[in-house]
Amino acid sequence: MTDSWVNETLYGAWGQRFLVKRELARVRSAFQDIMIFESETHGRVMLLDGVVQITEADEFVYQEMLTHVPLLAHGDAKRVLIIGAGDGGVLRRVLQHKGVERAVMVEIDGEVIRLAKQHLPMIAGEAWSDPRAEVIVGDGIDHVKQAPDASFDVVIVDSTDPIGVGEVLFTDEFYANCARLLTPRGLVVNQCGVPFMQAEELRETSLRRRKSFADVFAYVAAVPTYVGGFMTLGWAAKDAALRAVAVEEIRARAAAAGILGTTRYWTPEIHCGAFNLPPYIAEHLPK
Amino acid sequence: MTDSWVNETLYGAWGQRFLVKRELARVRSAFQDIMIFESETHGRVMLLDGVVQITEADEFVYQEMLTHVPLLAHGDAKRVLIIGAGDGGVLRRVLQHKGVERAVMVEIDGEVIRLAKQHLPMIAGEAWSDPRAEVIVGDGIDHVKQAPDASFDVVIVDSTDPIGVGEVLFTDEFYANCARLLTPRGLVVNQCGVPFMQAEELRETSLRRRKSFADVFAYVAAVPTYVGGFMTLGWAAKDAALRAVAVEEIRARAAAAGILGTTRYWTPEIHCGAFNLPPYIAEHLPK
Repeated sequence: MTDSWVNETLYGAWGQRFLVKRELARVRSAFQDIMIFESETHGRVMLLDGVVQITEADEFVYQEMLTHVPLLAHGDAKRVLIIGAGDGGVLRRVLQHKGVERAVMVEIDGEVIRLAKQHLPMIAGEAWSDPRAEVIVGDGIDHVKQAPDASFDVVIVDSTDPIGVGEVLFTDEFYANCARLLTPRGLVVNQCGVPFMQAEELRETSLRRRKSFADVFAYVAAVPTYVGGFMTLGWAAKDAALRAVAVEEIRARAAAAGILGTTRYWTPEIHCGAFNLPPYIAEHLPK
Repeated sequence: MTDSWVNETLYGAWGQRFLVKRELARVRSAFQDIMIFESETHGRVMLLDGVVQITEADEFVYQEMLTHVPLLAHGDAKRVLIIGAGDGGVLRRVLQHKGVERAVMVEIDGEVIRLAKQHLPMIAGEAWSDPRAEVIVGDGIDHVKQAPDASFDVVIVDSTDPIGVGEVLFTDEFYANCARLLTPRGLVVNQCGVPFMQAEELRETSLRRRKSFADVFAYVAAVPTYVGGFMTLGWAAKDAALRAVAVEEIRARAAAAGILGTTRYWTPEIHCGAFNLPPYIAEHLPK
Protein backbone atom coordinates (compact mmCIF):
# COMPACT_ATOMS: atom_id res chain seq x y z
CA MET A 1 0.00 0.00 0.00
CA THR A 2 1.49 3.29 -1.06
CA ASP A 3 0.29 6.84 -1.57
CA SER A 4 -0.50 6.08 -5.18
CA TRP A 5 -3.74 4.28 -4.28
CA VAL A 6 -6.98 6.26 -4.01
CA ASN A 7 -9.58 4.72 -1.74
CA GLU A 8 -13.20 5.68 -2.33
CA THR A 9 -14.72 6.89 0.93
CA LEU A 10 -18.45 6.57 0.13
CA TYR A 11 -18.90 3.79 2.68
CA GLY A 12 -16.87 3.75 5.83
CA ALA A 13 -15.97 0.08 5.92
CA TRP A 14 -16.03 -1.18 2.34
CA GLY A 15 -15.26 0.24 -1.07
CA GLN A 16 -13.13 0.29 -4.15
CA ARG A 17 -9.62 1.55 -4.65
CA PHE A 18 -7.70 2.62 -7.73
CA LEU A 19 -4.01 2.61 -8.45
CA VAL A 20 -3.20 6.13 -9.64
CA LYS A 21 -0.98 6.60 -12.64
CA ARG A 22 -1.02 10.38 -12.53
CA GLU A 23 -2.93 12.97 -10.59
CA LEU A 24 -4.45 15.62 -12.87
CA ALA A 25 -6.39 17.93 -10.56
CA ARG A 26 -7.16 18.32 -6.88
CA VAL A 27 -9.31 21.37 -6.21
CA ARG A 28 -11.43 22.56 -3.32
CA SER A 29 -14.31 24.41 -5.00
CA ALA A 30 -16.93 26.50 -3.21
CA PHE A 31 -19.01 23.31 -2.96
CA GLN A 32 -16.82 20.23 -2.75
CA ASP A 33 -13.46 18.56 -3.15
CA ILE A 34 -12.82 17.68 -6.79
CA MET A 35 -10.16 15.17 -7.76
CA ILE A 36 -9.30 13.89 -11.22
CA PHE A 37 -6.63 11.31 -11.91
CA GLU A 38 -5.45 8.94 -14.57
CA SER A 39 -5.93 5.39 -13.29
CA GLU A 40 -4.09 2.25 -14.32
CA THR A 41 -7.32 0.41 -15.12
CA HIS A 42 -10.23 2.77 -15.86
CA GLY A 43 -8.76 5.68 -17.77
CA ARG A 44 -9.45 9.03 -16.17
CA VAL A 45 -11.51 9.12 -12.97
CA MET A 46 -13.30 12.01 -11.23
CA LEU A 47 -14.17 11.99 -7.54
CA LEU A 48 -16.31 14.53 -5.69
CA ASP A 49 -15.83 14.55 -1.92
CA GLY A 50 -14.06 11.22 -2.21
CA VAL A 51 -16.85 9.49 -4.16
CA VAL A 52 -16.36 8.21 -7.72
CA GLN A 53 -18.56 10.15 -10.14
CA ILE A 54 -17.30 9.00 -13.47
CA THR A 55 -14.57 6.99 -15.11
CA GLU A 56 -13.64 7.14 -18.74
CA ALA A 57 -13.87 3.36 -19.08
CA ASP A 58 -17.39 2.75 -17.80
CA GLU A 59 -19.22 6.07 -18.11
CA PHE A 60 -21.23 4.67 -21.01
CA VAL A 61 -23.27 2.41 -18.75
CA TYR A 62 -24.59 5.13 -16.49
CA GLN A 63 -25.00 7.81 -19.17
CA GLU A 64 -26.83 5.55 -21.60
CA MET A 65 -29.24 4.26 -18.99
CA LEU A 66 -29.87 7.67 -17.39
CA THR A 67 -30.56 9.28 -20.78
CA HIS A 68 -31.90 6.85 -23.35
CA VAL A 69 -34.42 5.15 -21.06
CA PRO A 70 -36.46 8.29 -20.19
CA LEU A 71 -36.16 9.88 -23.64
CA LEU A 72 -37.22 6.76 -25.51
CA ALA A 73 -39.93 5.92 -22.98
CA HIS A 74 -41.34 9.40 -23.58
CA GLY A 75 -40.99 8.98 -27.32
CA ASP A 76 -41.25 12.62 -28.33
CA ALA A 77 -38.98 14.54 -25.97
CA LYS A 78 -38.07 17.92 -27.43
CA ARG A 79 -37.03 19.88 -24.36
CA VAL A 80 -34.83 18.27 -21.74
CA LEU A 81 -33.67 19.73 -18.43
CA ILE A 82 -30.50 18.28 -16.92
CA ILE A 83 -29.64 19.03 -13.29
CA GLY A 84 -26.02 18.40 -12.34
CA ALA A 85 -23.97 16.21 -14.70
CA GLY A 86 -21.16 18.75 -14.85
CA ASP A 87 -18.93 16.40 -16.79
CA GLY A 88 -21.19 16.86 -19.83
CA GLY A 89 -21.77 13.16 -20.44
CA VAL A 90 -25.55 13.26 -20.05
CA LEU A 91 -25.73 16.37 -22.22
CA ARG A 92 -23.88 14.55 -24.98
CA ARG A 93 -26.22 11.55 -24.83
CA VAL A 94 -29.33 13.77 -24.77
CA LEU A 95 -28.13 15.65 -27.86
CA GLN A 96 -27.63 12.35 -29.69
CA HIS A 97 -31.44 12.18 -29.95
CA LYS A 98 -32.44 13.78 -33.24
CA GLY A 99 -35.78 15.00 -31.90
CA VAL A 100 -34.30 17.02 -29.05
CA GLU A 101 -34.60 20.73 -29.80
CA ARG A 102 -33.28 22.15 -26.56
CA ALA A 103 -31.21 20.77 -23.69
CA VAL A 104 -30.73 22.97 -20.65
CA MET A 105 -28.10 21.86 -18.19
CA VAL A 106 -27.85 23.45 -14.75
CA GLU A 107 -24.72 22.58 -12.79
CA ILE A 108 -24.09 24.31 -9.48
CA ASP A 109 -20.31 23.93 -9.50
CA GLY A 110 -18.58 25.73 -12.36
CA GLU A 111 -15.29 24.18 -11.29
CA VAL A 112 -16.60 20.72 -12.20
CA ILE A 113 -17.39 21.93 -15.72
CA ARG A 114 -14.08 23.72 -16.07
CA LEU A 115 -12.05 20.73 -14.90
CA ALA A 116 -14.10 18.27 -16.98
CA LYS A 117 -13.49 20.37 -20.10
CA GLN A 118 -9.79 20.42 -19.32
CA HIS A 119 -9.18 16.84 -18.21
CA LEU A 120 -12.18 14.80 -19.39
CA PRO A 121 -12.91 16.23 -22.84
CA MET A 122 -13.88 12.80 -24.20
CA ILE A 123 -16.91 12.61 -21.91
CA ALA A 124 -18.88 15.51 -23.42
CA GLY A 125 -17.32 15.48 -26.87
CA GLU A 126 -18.79 18.30 -28.95
CA ALA A 127 -21.83 18.74 -26.71
CA TRP A 128 -20.62 21.98 -25.10
CA SER A 129 -20.79 23.81 -28.44
CA ASP A 130 -24.03 22.30 -29.76
CA PRO A 131 -26.45 25.13 -30.61
CA ARG A 132 -29.29 23.21 -28.95
CA ALA A 133 -27.45 23.21 -25.60
CA GLU A 134 -27.71 25.85 -22.91
CA VAL A 135 -25.28 25.34 -20.04
CA ILE A 136 -26.00 27.30 -16.88
CA VAL A 137 -23.76 27.47 -13.86
CA GLY A 138 -26.32 27.93 -11.13
CA ASP A 139 -28.56 26.39 -8.55
CA GLY A 140 -30.82 23.66 -9.88
CA ILE A 141 -33.29 24.35 -7.07
CA ASP A 142 -33.74 27.96 -8.14
CA HIS A 143 -33.97 26.94 -11.76
CA VAL A 144 -36.80 24.47 -11.26
CA LYS A 145 -38.62 27.08 -9.12
CA GLN A 146 -38.45 29.67 -11.88
CA ALA A 147 -39.05 27.45 -14.92
CA PRO A 148 -42.44 28.08 -16.58
CA ASP A 149 -45.18 25.47 -16.27
CA ALA A 150 -45.04 22.63 -18.79
CA SER A 151 -41.78 23.86 -20.28
CA PHE A 152 -39.87 20.53 -20.39
CA ASP A 153 -40.63 16.96 -21.46
CA VAL A 154 -37.95 15.19 -19.43
CA VAL A 155 -35.91 16.12 -16.35
CA ILE A 156 -32.69 14.19 -15.71
CA VAL A 157 -31.13 14.61 -12.28
CA ASP A 158 -27.51 13.46 -12.29
CA SER A 159 -26.55 14.42 -8.78
CA THR A 160 -24.35 13.19 -6.01
CA ASP A 161 -26.03 11.15 -3.30
CA PRO A 162 -28.60 12.85 -1.05
CA ILE A 163 -25.87 14.02 1.26
CA GLY A 164 -23.82 17.21 1.00
CA VAL A 165 -24.40 19.46 -1.99
CA GLY A 166 -26.86 17.06 -3.65
CA GLU A 167 -29.26 16.79 -0.72
CA VAL A 168 -31.64 19.56 -1.84
CA LEU A 169 -32.27 17.73 -5.12
CA PHE A 170 -34.26 15.09 -3.27
CA THR A 171 -36.82 17.24 -1.42
CA ASP A 172 -40.61 17.39 -1.73
CA GLU A 173 -40.38 20.93 -3.06
CA PHE A 174 -37.92 19.96 -5.77
CA TYR A 175 -40.14 17.15 -7.03
CA ALA A 176 -43.25 19.36 -6.90
CA ASN A 177 -41.51 21.88 -9.09
CA CYS A 178 -40.41 19.15 -11.48
CA ALA A 179 -44.01 18.00 -11.83
CA ARG A 180 -45.13 21.56 -12.52
CA LEU A 181 -42.50 22.37 -15.13
CA LEU A 182 -43.06 19.07 -16.96
CA THR A 183 -45.53 18.56 -19.80
CA PRO A 184 -48.46 16.14 -19.21
CA ARG A 185 -46.48 13.15 -20.49
CA GLY A 186 -43.38 14.34 -18.65
CA LEU A 187 -41.11 12.38 -16.35
CA VAL A 188 -38.09 12.80 -14.13
CA VAL A 189 -35.31 10.30 -13.56
CA ASN A 190 -32.55 10.55 -11.00
CA GLN A 191 -29.77 8.44 -9.60
CA CYS A 192 -30.85 6.65 -6.44
CA GLY A 193 -27.71 4.93 -5.26
CA VAL A 194 -26.82 1.27 -4.90
CA PRO A 195 -29.60 -0.33 -2.83
CA PHE A 196 -27.50 -3.23 -1.61
CA MET A 197 -25.55 -0.62 0.37
CA GLN A 198 -27.94 2.38 0.46
CA ALA A 199 -31.47 1.00 0.46
CA GLU A 200 -32.85 3.90 2.47
CA GLU A 201 -31.90 6.27 -0.34
CA LEU A 202 -34.26 4.53 -2.74
CA ARG A 203 -37.01 4.13 -0.18
CA GLU A 204 -37.03 7.66 1.18
CA THR A 205 -36.69 9.50 -2.09
CA SER A 206 -39.36 7.30 -3.70
CA LEU A 207 -41.79 8.32 -0.98
CA ARG A 208 -41.08 11.97 -1.78
CA ARG A 209 -41.49 11.50 -5.53
CA ARG A 210 -44.83 9.85 -4.92
CA LYS A 211 -46.25 13.07 -3.48
CA SER A 212 -45.98 14.74 -6.89
CA PHE A 213 -46.14 11.93 -9.46
CA ALA A 214 -48.70 9.24 -10.25
CA ASP A 215 -46.18 6.59 -11.26
CA VAL A 216 -43.10 6.18 -9.06
CA PHE A 217 -40.77 3.29 -9.68
CA ALA A 218 -37.11 2.53 -10.33
CA TYR A 219 -34.99 0.77 -12.88
CA VAL A 220 -31.56 -0.79 -12.61
CA ALA A 221 -28.15 -0.63 -14.25
CA ALA A 222 -24.98 -2.54 -13.43
CA VAL A 223 -22.38 0.25 -13.38
CA PRO A 224 -18.87 -1.20 -12.88
CA THR A 225 -17.55 1.58 -10.63
CA TYR A 226 -20.72 2.25 -8.68
CA VAL A 227 -19.77 -0.88 -6.82
CA GLY A 228 -22.24 -3.04 -4.91
CA GLY A 229 -24.45 -4.66 -7.54
CA PHE A 230 -27.23 -2.85 -9.34
CA MET A 231 -27.59 0.86 -8.94
CA THR A 232 -31.13 2.16 -9.15
CA LEU A 233 -32.37 5.06 -11.21
CA GLY A 234 -35.48 6.70 -9.81
CA TRP A 235 -38.49 7.01 -12.09
CA ALA A 236 -41.33 9.49 -11.55
CA ALA A 237 -43.85 9.93 -14.35
CA LYS A 238 -47.27 11.41 -14.75
CA ASP A 239 -48.34 8.54 -16.98
CA ALA A 240 -47.71 4.91 -16.01
CA ALA A 241 -47.85 3.89 -19.67
CA LEU A 242 -44.33 5.24 -20.17
CA ARG A 243 -42.67 2.34 -18.43
CA ALA A 244 -44.79 -0.25 -20.20
CA VAL A 245 -43.82 0.58 -23.78
CA ALA A 246 -43.21 -2.65 -25.68
CA VAL A 247 -39.71 -3.60 -26.74
CA GLU A 248 -40.47 -3.33 -30.47
CA GLU A 249 -41.80 0.20 -30.06
CA ILE A 250 -38.69 1.17 -28.08
CA ARG A 251 -36.56 -0.26 -30.87
CA ALA A 252 -38.46 1.72 -33.50
CA ARG A 253 -38.14 4.92 -31.49
CA ALA A 254 -34.42 4.33 -30.97
CA ALA A 255 -33.93 3.81 -34.68
CA ALA A 256 -35.81 7.02 -35.48
CA ALA A 257 -33.88 8.95 -32.84
CA GLY A 258 -30.51 7.79 -34.17
CA ILE A 259 -29.64 5.81 -31.04
CA LEU A 260 -29.90 2.21 -32.24
CA GLY A 261 -26.47 0.72 -32.78
CA THR A 262 -24.63 3.53 -30.96
CA THR A 263 -24.75 1.99 -27.49
CA ARG A 264 -22.55 -0.37 -25.53
CA TYR A 265 -24.92 -1.15 -22.63
CA TRP A 266 -28.42 0.02 -23.58
CA THR A 267 -30.49 -2.13 -25.91
CA PRO A 268 -34.27 -2.21 -26.35
CA GLU A 269 -34.37 -5.48 -24.39
CA ILE A 270 -32.23 -4.11 -21.58
CA HIS A 271 -34.38 -0.96 -21.52
CA CYS A 272 -37.54 -2.98 -20.89
CA GLY A 273 -35.86 -5.53 -18.64
CA ALA A 274 -34.37 -2.86 -16.37
CA PHE A 275 -37.79 -2.38 -14.76
CA ASN A 276 -37.81 -5.99 -13.56
CA LEU A 277 -36.36 -5.50 -10.10
CA PRO A 278 -34.85 -8.21 -7.93
CA PRO A 279 -36.97 -8.68 -4.80
CA TYR A 280 -34.16 -7.37 -2.59
CA ILE A 281 -34.53 -4.03 -4.41
CA ALA A 282 -38.28 -4.03 -5.07
CA GLU A 283 -38.98 -4.38 -1.35
CA HIS A 284 -37.69 -0.85 -0.81
CA LEU A 285 -40.19 0.77 -3.16
CA PRO A 286 -43.34 2.18 -1.57
CA LYS A 287 -46.32 -0.13 -1.98
CA MET B 1 -5.12 2.63 6.35
CA THR B 2 -4.44 0.01 9.01
CA ASP B 3 -3.85 -3.71 9.17
CA SER B 4 -7.55 -4.28 9.66
CA TRP B 5 -8.36 -3.72 5.98
CA VAL B 6 -8.29 -6.62 3.54
CA ASN B 7 -7.63 -5.65 -0.08
CA GLU B 8 -8.82 -8.03 -2.75
CA THR B 9 -5.93 -8.86 -5.07
CA LEU B 10 -7.82 -10.21 -8.11
CA TYR B 11 -6.77 -7.26 -10.25
CA GLY B 12 -3.44 -5.61 -9.72
CA ALA B 13 -4.53 -1.99 -9.95
CA TRP B 14 -8.17 -1.84 -8.91
CA GLY B 15 -10.38 -3.68 -6.49
CA GLN B 16 -12.44 -3.74 -3.36
CA ARG B 17 -11.41 -3.65 0.26
CA PHE B 18 -13.15 -4.66 3.45
CA LEU B 19 -12.74 -3.43 6.97
CA VAL B 20 -12.21 -6.54 9.06
CA LYS B 21 -14.01 -6.90 12.35
CA ARG B 22 -12.47 -10.23 13.25
CA GLU B 23 -10.32 -12.76 11.48
CA LEU B 24 -11.74 -16.28 11.72
CA ALA B 25 -9.38 -18.46 9.72
CA ARG B 26 -6.23 -18.16 7.69
CA VAL B 27 -5.08 -21.50 6.33
CA ARG B 28 -2.70 -22.62 3.62
CA SER B 29 -4.29 -25.80 2.24
CA ALA B 30 -2.68 -28.17 -0.24
CA PHE B 31 -4.27 -26.09 -3.00
CA GLN B 32 -4.63 -22.46 -1.97
CA ASP B 33 -4.68 -19.78 0.72
CA ILE B 34 -8.02 -19.71 2.50
CA MET B 35 -9.08 -16.73 4.57
CA ILE B 36 -12.36 -16.19 6.37
CA PHE B 37 -13.18 -13.05 8.32
CA GLU B 38 -16.09 -11.19 9.81
CA SER B 39 -16.47 -7.90 7.94
CA GLU B 40 -18.06 -4.68 9.15
CA THR B 41 -20.38 -4.51 6.14
CA HIS B 42 -20.96 -7.89 4.50
CA GLY B 43 -21.10 -10.41 7.32
CA ARG B 44 -18.61 -13.23 6.95
CA VAL B 45 -16.36 -13.25 3.89
CA MET B 46 -14.23 -16.03 2.38
CA LEU B 47 -11.24 -15.39 0.13
CA LEU B 48 -9.26 -17.96 -1.83
CA ASP B 49 -5.81 -16.82 -2.91
CA GLY B 50 -6.84 -13.24 -2.11
CA VAL B 51 -10.01 -13.31 -4.24
CA VAL B 52 -13.47 -12.92 -2.71
CA GLN B 53 -15.48 -16.12 -3.17
CA ILE B 54 -18.49 -15.50 -1.02
CA THR B 55 -19.92 -13.09 1.51
CA GLU B 56 -22.78 -13.83 3.82
CA ALA B 57 -24.59 -10.66 2.74
CA ASP B 58 -24.72 -11.13 -1.01
CA GLU B 59 -24.22 -14.85 -1.62
CA PHE B 60 -27.89 -15.14 -2.57
CA VAL B 61 -27.36 -13.33 -5.87
CA TYR B 62 -24.72 -15.66 -7.23
CA GLN B 63 -26.15 -18.89 -5.81
CA GLU B 64 -29.68 -18.22 -7.02
CA MET B 65 -28.58 -17.32 -10.53
CA LEU B 66 -26.05 -20.17 -10.83
CA THR B 67 -28.59 -22.75 -9.66
CA HIS B 68 -32.17 -21.79 -10.44
CA VAL B 69 -31.53 -20.66 -14.00
CA PRO B 70 -30.15 -23.98 -15.32
CA LEU B 71 -32.46 -26.18 -13.24
CA LEU B 72 -35.62 -24.31 -14.25
CA ALA B 73 -34.50 -23.94 -17.86
CA HIS B 74 -34.09 -27.72 -17.95
CA GLY B 75 -37.44 -28.18 -16.26
CA ASP B 76 -37.01 -31.78 -15.14
CA ALA B 77 -33.56 -31.99 -13.59
CA LYS B 78 -33.29 -35.00 -11.31
CA ARG B 79 -29.53 -35.55 -11.13
CA VAL B 80 -27.21 -32.60 -10.67
CA LEU B 81 -23.43 -32.58 -10.58
CA ILE B 82 -21.74 -29.68 -8.79
CA ILE B 83 -18.03 -29.08 -9.28
CA GLY B 84 -16.39 -26.86 -6.68
CA ALA B 85 -18.69 -24.76 -4.50
CA GLY B 86 -17.06 -25.99 -1.31
CA ASP B 87 -19.04 -23.55 0.81
CA GLY B 88 -22.17 -25.61 0.17
CA GLY B 89 -24.29 -22.72 -1.08
CA VAL B 90 -25.01 -24.17 -4.51
CA LEU B 91 -25.75 -27.56 -2.98
CA ARG B 92 -28.35 -25.95 -0.73
CA ARG B 93 -30.05 -24.15 -3.64
CA VAL B 94 -30.03 -27.32 -5.79
CA LEU B 95 -31.67 -29.31 -3.01
CA GLN B 96 -34.40 -26.69 -2.71
CA HIS B 97 -35.77 -28.07 -5.98
CA LYS B 98 -38.34 -30.74 -5.10
CA GLY B 99 -37.66 -32.72 -8.26
CA VAL B 100 -33.96 -33.22 -7.59
CA GLU B 101 -33.27 -36.80 -6.57
CA ARG B 102 -29.50 -36.71 -6.36
CA ALA B 103 -26.92 -33.94 -6.06
CA VAL B 104 -23.28 -34.90 -6.26
CA MET B 105 -20.78 -32.27 -5.24
CA VAL B 106 -17.08 -32.68 -5.98
CA GLU B 107 -14.80 -30.20 -4.26
CA ILE B 108 -11.06 -30.62 -4.57
CA ASP B 109 -10.15 -28.85 -1.36
CA GLY B 110 -11.46 -30.51 1.79
CA GLU B 111 -10.18 -27.60 3.84
CA VAL B 112 -12.69 -25.26 2.14
CA ILE B 113 -15.53 -27.58 3.16
CA ARG B 114 -14.20 -27.99 6.70
CA LEU B 115 -13.74 -24.25 7.22
CA ALA B 116 -17.09 -23.40 5.61
CA LYS B 117 -18.86 -25.85 7.93
CA GLN B 118 -17.10 -24.28 10.89
CA HIS B 119 -17.33 -20.57 10.04
CA LEU B 120 -20.02 -20.22 7.34
CA PRO B 121 -22.68 -22.70 8.47
CA MET B 122 -25.48 -20.38 7.28
CA ILE B 123 -24.41 -20.78 3.64
CA ALA B 124 -25.17 -24.48 3.28
CA GLY B 125 -27.77 -24.77 6.02
CA GLU B 126 -28.93 -28.38 6.31
CA ALA B 127 -27.66 -29.33 2.87
CA TRP B 128 -24.67 -31.32 4.12
CA SER B 129 -26.95 -33.87 5.80
CA ASP B 130 -29.62 -34.11 3.09
CA PRO B 131 -29.97 -37.79 2.06
CA ARG B 132 -30.05 -36.73 -1.61
CA ALA B 133 -26.59 -35.14 -1.34
CA GLU B 134 -23.30 -36.89 -1.95
CA VAL B 135 -20.27 -34.76 -1.09
CA ILE B 136 -16.97 -35.94 -2.50
CA VAL B 137 -13.58 -34.46 -1.70
CA GLY B 138 -11.76 -35.09 -4.92
CA ASP B 139 -10.72 -33.94 -8.32
CA GLY B 140 -13.59 -32.73 -10.49
CA ILE B 141 -11.58 -33.56 -13.60
CA ASP B 142 -11.26 -37.20 -12.61
CA HIS B 143 -14.88 -37.33 -11.63
CA VAL B 144 -16.21 -36.12 -14.96
CA LYS B 145 -13.85 -38.55 -16.73
CA GLN B 146 -15.22 -41.50 -14.79
CA ALA B 147 -18.89 -40.57 -14.68
CA PRO B 148 -21.09 -42.85 -16.82
CA ASP B 149 -22.61 -41.53 -20.04
CA ALA B 150 -25.86 -39.59 -19.65
CA SER B 151 -25.78 -39.83 -15.87
CA PHE B 152 -26.60 -36.18 -15.03
CA ASP B 153 -29.13 -33.60 -16.21
CA VAL B 154 -27.26 -30.47 -15.13
CA VAL B 155 -23.62 -29.70 -14.33
CA ILE B 156 -22.88 -26.58 -12.27
CA VAL B 157 -19.26 -25.47 -12.16
CA ASP B 158 -18.67 -23.06 -9.30
CA SER B 159 -14.96 -22.62 -9.60
CA THR B 160 -12.37 -19.95 -9.09
CA ASP B 161 -11.27 -18.07 -12.19
CA PRO B 162 -9.37 -19.98 -14.89
CA ILE B 163 -6.09 -19.37 -13.11
CA GLY B 164 -4.53 -21.48 -10.38
CA VAL B 165 -6.45 -24.48 -9.11
CA GLY B 166 -9.54 -23.71 -11.23
CA GLU B 167 -7.76 -23.65 -14.59
CA VAL B 168 -8.34 -27.30 -15.49
CA LEU B 169 -12.10 -26.78 -15.21
CA PHE B 170 -12.07 -24.73 -18.39
CA THR B 171 -10.35 -27.14 -20.81
CA ASP B 172 -11.64 -28.81 -23.97
CA GLU B 173 -11.40 -32.19 -22.31
CA PHE B 174 -13.44 -31.10 -19.32
CA TYR B 175 -16.27 -29.82 -21.51
CA ALA B 176 -16.17 -32.90 -23.71
CA ASN B 177 -16.62 -35.05 -20.64
CA CYS B 178 -19.47 -32.84 -19.44
CA ALA B 179 -21.23 -33.29 -22.76
CA ARG B 180 -20.78 -37.04 -22.52
CA LEU B 181 -22.03 -37.43 -18.97
CA LEU B 182 -25.07 -35.22 -19.58
CA THR B 183 -28.46 -36.47 -20.77
CA PRO B 184 -29.70 -35.29 -24.19
CA ARG B 185 -31.41 -32.21 -22.72
CA GLY B 186 -28.46 -31.58 -20.41
CA LEU B 187 -26.55 -28.37 -19.88
CA VAL B 188 -23.56 -27.01 -18.00
CA VAL B 189 -23.22 -23.58 -16.44
CA ASN B 190 -20.08 -22.08 -14.99
CA GLN B 191 -18.87 -18.78 -13.65
CA CYS B 192 -17.12 -16.77 -16.35
CA GLY B 193 -15.83 -13.72 -14.52
CA VAL B 194 -16.67 -10.05 -14.84
CA PRO B 195 -16.26 -9.17 -18.52
CA PHE B 196 -15.70 -5.48 -17.93
CA MET B 197 -12.40 -6.52 -16.32
CA GLN B 198 -11.86 -10.05 -17.67
CA ALA B 199 -13.39 -10.19 -21.14
CA GLU B 200 -10.92 -12.77 -22.40
CA GLU B 201 -12.19 -15.23 -19.80
CA LEU B 202 -15.65 -15.22 -21.36
CA ARG B 203 -14.33 -15.26 -24.92
CA GLU B 204 -11.80 -18.05 -24.54
CA THR B 205 -13.87 -20.39 -22.45
CA SER B 206 -16.89 -19.90 -24.73
CA LEU B 207 -14.80 -21.03 -27.68
CA ARG B 208 -13.90 -24.18 -25.78
CA ARG B 209 -17.48 -24.90 -24.77
CA ARG B 210 -18.53 -24.59 -28.38
CA LYS B 211 -16.45 -27.60 -29.35
CA SER B 212 -18.73 -29.85 -27.31
CA PHE B 213 -22.11 -28.11 -27.17
CA ALA B 214 -24.57 -26.92 -29.80
CA ASP B 215 -25.74 -23.86 -27.88
CA VAL B 216 -23.09 -21.74 -26.17
CA PHE B 217 -24.08 -18.45 -24.62
CA ALA B 218 -23.89 -16.54 -21.34
CA TYR B 219 -26.21 -14.83 -18.92
CA VAL B 220 -25.58 -12.06 -16.44
CA ALA B 221 -25.98 -11.34 -12.75
CA ALA B 222 -25.08 -8.20 -10.79
CA VAL B 223 -23.24 -9.67 -7.81
CA PRO B 224 -22.34 -6.92 -5.32
CA THR B 225 -18.92 -8.27 -4.32
CA TYR B 226 -17.86 -9.57 -7.73
CA VAL B 227 -17.15 -5.95 -8.45
CA GLY B 228 -17.01 -4.46 -11.93
CA GLY B 229 -20.58 -4.56 -13.24
CA PHE B 230 -22.26 -7.72 -14.49
CA MET B 231 -20.59 -11.04 -14.00
CA THR B 232 -21.30 -13.61 -16.68
CA LEU B 233 -22.34 -17.19 -16.18
CA GLY B 234 -21.39 -19.45 -19.03
CA TRP B 235 -24.12 -21.52 -20.67
CA ALA B 236 -23.49 -24.63 -22.73
CA ALA B 237 -26.51 -26.72 -23.71
CA LYS B 238 -27.26 -29.48 -26.16
CA ASP B 239 -30.64 -27.94 -26.97
CA ALA B 240 -31.00 -24.21 -27.74
CA ALA B 241 -34.64 -24.33 -26.68
CA LEU B 242 -33.55 -24.30 -23.04
CA ARG B 243 -32.66 -20.63 -23.03
CA ALA B 244 -35.83 -19.61 -24.86
CA VAL B 245 -38.38 -20.91 -22.36
CA ALA B 246 -41.13 -18.30 -21.92
CA VAL B 247 -41.40 -16.42 -18.65
CA GLU B 248 -44.78 -17.91 -17.75
CA GLU B 249 -43.45 -21.44 -18.17
CA ILE B 250 -40.44 -20.59 -15.99
CA ARG B 251 -42.83 -19.24 -13.36
CA ALA B 252 -44.93 -22.42 -13.45
CA ARG B 253 -41.84 -24.60 -13.15
CA ALA B 254 -40.54 -22.52 -10.25
CA ALA B 255 -43.87 -22.84 -8.46
CA ALA B 256 -43.88 -26.60 -8.95
CA ALA B 257 -40.26 -26.89 -7.81
CA GLY B 258 -40.92 -24.91 -4.61
CA ILE B 259 -38.67 -22.02 -5.63
CA LEU B 260 -41.17 -19.24 -6.33
CA GLY B 261 -41.24 -16.73 -3.49
CA THR B 262 -38.05 -18.04 -1.86
CA THR B 263 -35.63 -15.83 -3.77
CA ARG B 264 -34.18 -12.36 -3.25
CA TYR B 265 -32.62 -11.83 -6.70
CA TRP B 266 -34.00 -14.46 -9.07
CA THR B 267 -37.47 -13.95 -10.52
CA PRO B 268 -38.97 -15.45 -13.69
CA GLU B 269 -38.52 -12.07 -15.42
CA ILE B 270 -34.91 -11.73 -14.31
CA HIS B 271 -34.28 -15.33 -15.39
CA CYS B 272 -35.40 -14.59 -18.94
CA GLY B 273 -33.91 -11.08 -19.04
CA ALA B 274 -30.48 -12.29 -17.94
CA PHE B 275 -29.85 -13.62 -21.46
CA ASN B 276 -30.19 -10.11 -22.91
CA LEU B 277 -26.56 -9.08 -22.90
CA PRO B 278 -25.25 -5.53 -23.15
CA PRO B 279 -23.29 -5.11 -26.39
CA TYR B 280 -20.05 -4.62 -24.47
CA ILE B 281 -20.47 -8.19 -23.18
CA ALA B 282 -22.13 -9.80 -26.22
CA GLU B 283 -19.21 -8.80 -28.42
CA HIS B 284 -17.01 -11.28 -26.57
CA LEU B 285 -19.14 -14.29 -27.39
CA PRO B 286 -18.14 -16.36 -30.41
CA LYS B 287 -20.26 -15.52 -33.44
